[in-house]
Amino acid sequence: VITSFDPRSATAVQDVAAETTAAEVARQCATAAAAGPALESAGRAARAAMLRSMAGALEDDRAELVATADRETALGPTRLNGELTRSAYQLSFFAEVIEDGAYLEATIDHAGPTPMGPRPDLRRMLRPVGPVAVFGASNFPFAFSVPGGDTASALAAGCPVVIKAHEAHPATSQLSAAALRRGAAAAGFSADVVSLVFGMQAGADLTGDPHIQAVGFTGSLAGGRALAEIAAARPSPVPFYGELGAVNPLVVCPAAATGRGRAIAAGLAGSFTLGVGQFCTKPGLAFVPAGPAGDDLVAALAAEVTAAGGGAMLSARVHGGFAAGTAGLREATGVSVLAEGSAAERDGGWWGTPLLLQAEPDALAGPVLEECFGPVLVVVRYQTQDELSGLLGQVGPALTASIHADDGDLAMSGQLVEWFTGRVGRIVWNGYPTGVAVAWATQHGGPYPATTDVLHTSVGASAIRRWLRPVAYQDLPAGLLPAELADELPDGVRLPRRVDGVLAMA
Amino acid sequence: VITSFDPRSATAVQDVAAETTAAEVARQCATAAAAGPALESAGRAARAAMLRSMAGALEDDRAELVATADRETALGPTRLNGELTRSAYQLSFFAEVIEDGAYLEATIDHAGPTPMGPRPDLRRMLRPVGPVAVFGASNFPFAFSVPGGDTASALAAGCPVVIKAHEAHPATSQLSAAALRRGAAAAGFSADVVSLVFGMQAGADLTGDPHIQAVGFTGSLAGGRALAEIAAARPSPVPFYGELGAVNPLVVCPAAATGRGRAIAAGLAGSFTLGVGQFCTKPGLAFVPAGPAGDDLVAALAAEVTAAGGGAMLSARVHGGFAAGTAGLREATGVSVLAEGSAAERDGGWWGTPLLLQAEPDALAGPVLEECFGPVLVVVRYQTQDELSGLLGQVGPALTASIHADDGDLAMSGQLVEWFTGRVGRIVWNGYPTGVAVAWATQHGGPYPATTDVLHTSVGASAIRRWLRPVAYQDLPAGLLPAELADELPDGVRLPRRVDGVLAMA
Repeated sequence: VITSFDPRSATAVQDVAAETTAAEVARQCATAAAAGPALESAGRAARAAMLRSMAGALEDDRAELVATADRETALGPTRLNGELTRSAYQLSFFAEVIEDGAYLEATIDHAGPTPMGPRPDLRRMLRPVGPVAVFGASNFPFAFSVPGGDTASALAAGCPVVIKAHEAHPATSQLSAAALRRGAAAAGFSADVVSLVFGMQAGADLTGDPHIQAVGFTGSLAGGRALAEIAAARPSPVPFYGELGAVNPLVVCPAAATGRGRAIAAGLAGSFTLGVGQFCTKPGLAFVPAGPAGDDLVAALAAEVTAAGGGAMLSARVHGGFAAGTAGLREATGVSVLAEGSAAERDGGWWGTPLLLQAEPDALAGPVLEECFGPVLVVVRYQTQDELSGLLGQVGPALTASIHADDGDLAMSGQLVEWFTGRVGRIVWNGYPTGVAVAWATQHGGPYPATTDVLHTSVGASAIRRWLRPVAYQDLPAGLLPAELADELPDGVRLPRRVDGVLAMA
Repeated sequence: VITSFDPRSATAVQDVAAETTAAEVARQCATAAAAGPALESAGRAARAAMLRSMAGALEDDRAELVATADRETALGPTRLNGELTRSAYQLSFFAEVIEDGAYLEATIDHAGPTPMGPRPDLRRMLRPVGPVAVFGASNFPFAFSVPGGDTASALAAGCPVVIKAHEAHPATSQLSAAALRRGAAAAGFSADVVSLVFGMQAGADLTGDPHIQAVGFTGSLAGGRALAEIAAARPSPVPFYGELGAVNPLVVCPAAATGRGRAIAAGLAGSFTLGVGQFCTKPGLAFVPAGPAGDDLVAALAAEVTAAGGGAMLSARVHGGFAAGTAGLREATGVSVLAEGSAAERDGGWWGTPLLLQAEPDALAGPVLEECFGPVLVVVRYQTQDELSGLLGQVGPALTASIHADDGDLAMSGQLVEWFTGRVGRIVWNGYPTGVAVAWATQHGGPYPATTDVLHTSVGASAIRRWLRPVAYQDLPAGLLPAELADELPDGVRLPRRVDGVLAMA
């Protein structure tokens, strides 16, 4: 049975659902598959209306959704109201993306001569892959869970979704799924374009189900790798998009440390303790120059951390992972404690207290280079740019890298941009990596282990590309072509296309 | 040692190279990685010039390349001259693709307000993944081997390539690599943007090398799956793009059979025996209506096959696979021989003789549904559209599906298009699937086992997408942005971009 807990008291509150049986997972996947053709054939305008209807249904249920999520996650109503706004916005944003139509990559090459002889008429566009499995994340009960980006982008593409509810917020998942299903029905679609399963085994069964054509996952390295292996070992392997997290580096260049060290300390403390450090984009390693300016920065950072109180973490598992991870860091050779948050603030439950550590340059190994989910930051001091380059060479790929640099840091920061371009998905300049905008230019992903798929993003307009596969039509008669590939577009069908090699606007 | 054979006499002709040692593979991968940054930073215009220089170098060596490939593959000078023309054209085509610039997906979102608060300045584009491993195919010594589409698209993207030479044409591979390296050097690039390794173990070592960031493979299901597992089991998994082949179905609808059965028979016989049946797009299963028109079509097809002579196949392995595959088909329950090519034509060597079989509708199982590489086609007769639908439900996904239909077949053919859209990468209307154009709208790929990656193509402009990963820059100063992401594009830099949600032409 799946039980909902209260992180603030570390107690069970209610049983939400039974674990979904293998037979029931199979039935839901078959039902999702049956709902797929209508989802695609309804067309982009109708799917956009459905996405907006789903956004409206979430807004209608805002009070209950936020209250339930707050009780299950302890993230607080301010954050959770913002996150629900983000989720509703994201659904509407993907409505815009599919109305725009460029995502279809519609391409027409008319028949004609080539150096190799005559070429047939060829027309290519992207089509939905079919039913998609989505795994909610513990740390975003809305924006990376049932009503999150994977769900929004897959539905926009025309793929039904079967979602595995995260154990950290089963009641929120249930309410969210009900809202999405109601939104689908209100827009004239089958409610079964969204369904929900519960339990670890159900997640494994879902990943192996023959109807499922792709998997979106946000979570831990261990969980992601296990599911990725199931996806790859199927008789018919399917793509697995796992966002597994990372140790996100932040570099403070010397002039920036001198010019605004205290401001950076305040921003950095806010970023790594935000949401009790429970972000995959949390800065985990900060490289600060040796010398007085860096000393001031670190002292200010320590003061911020000492004054910070912490908060209840998402689940017993997350709390246990943070305890084990910080214990490993404290015991690691060359690692020392700079500051800890106020234990007086602790009010019971699965409490996480902020922790600031320093690692010697020769201690960049083992736990220092592994993600520790929660409010912990490791500071490393560097003497020279050469030493910094050597240290960064030991840090693994990540979702983000942040560079703090002022005018005097120009040469050094240029080299850092070049270095990180090969190692991360997003480079943040004079800022902090927590916070991922939902926009056209968003990239959320990076080389393994940040994500299992380095070519795609799980946030932003391009996230839809994961659920689409290209199909080409050779010499097909006009009457059988998809509307988007007709020579003359029907009324109401607009999109950019490439025709005979030339890109043309909508 | 790697030996070059003559398929026409089934004899060894010369030793070409030693098997590349693990240490030498590692050295070549490191050398390729060192050549990468200059390949990208040179810019699109310089890389386009390099691709054209490589095409010129292939043309300069045409006589020797074709003679060597003919001796190693027995494909004949007409086909091989055409294939070399295709390979040179493909290099020039990818020069055009990168000059166009749309492939970079350059996107700019300026800072501004959103429903969730202010958004930073975000700019995203695709960057090369790094060194790429390419595995040549036996059946295309040029167009899917050393100077083939994987190499051309990866170099265009800015990725150095390390190529595993196919054992069926090692001398051709060596000459081809020398031409590409000369072409690179003539254009001012390091010759090491292309290098070559020999041997099965070297291929495995290459796939596991930490410098390699993606793998392109065209070949057998068994070989591809083994390499895919190596790529997935690396400490840092990398994408594996395997084109593994398929049983490509062809359906003749009733009116088409009545109206032009004999023409279809002639076209189909030509397609499945072309190049001694050694195409991944070879039609392998033909569904022909029961009744007199279908009888006539099949009789005409049998006559074509009886008159056909066959030819030497590519290698002992391919020849042995064809012998084993056709033996399995002959022994399968419900399968009977309709016609065989003339044995009198056989002149020794690894000869493949065309074979036409018929399978009963209840015999669609086992070997009938597996790819048999070589000149063999299985005919299945169907009574009704319902029976046909049931039969097609048993056929696996494929690279292509072909539909022959006339005006009287409209309703049926529409349903076939819908069905195959979910099952194959390219639907061919009133044509034959052998022959894949190099064009903007090309799609060569399909659901597993046709390809291991269903989202991408290995031929055509979009093939470049496999070697690119997105990177986003947040609030980066103008001086550090890639030229393609500047607010004002520098002189000579042109490309389509999406700025604040609006797509703008070059």
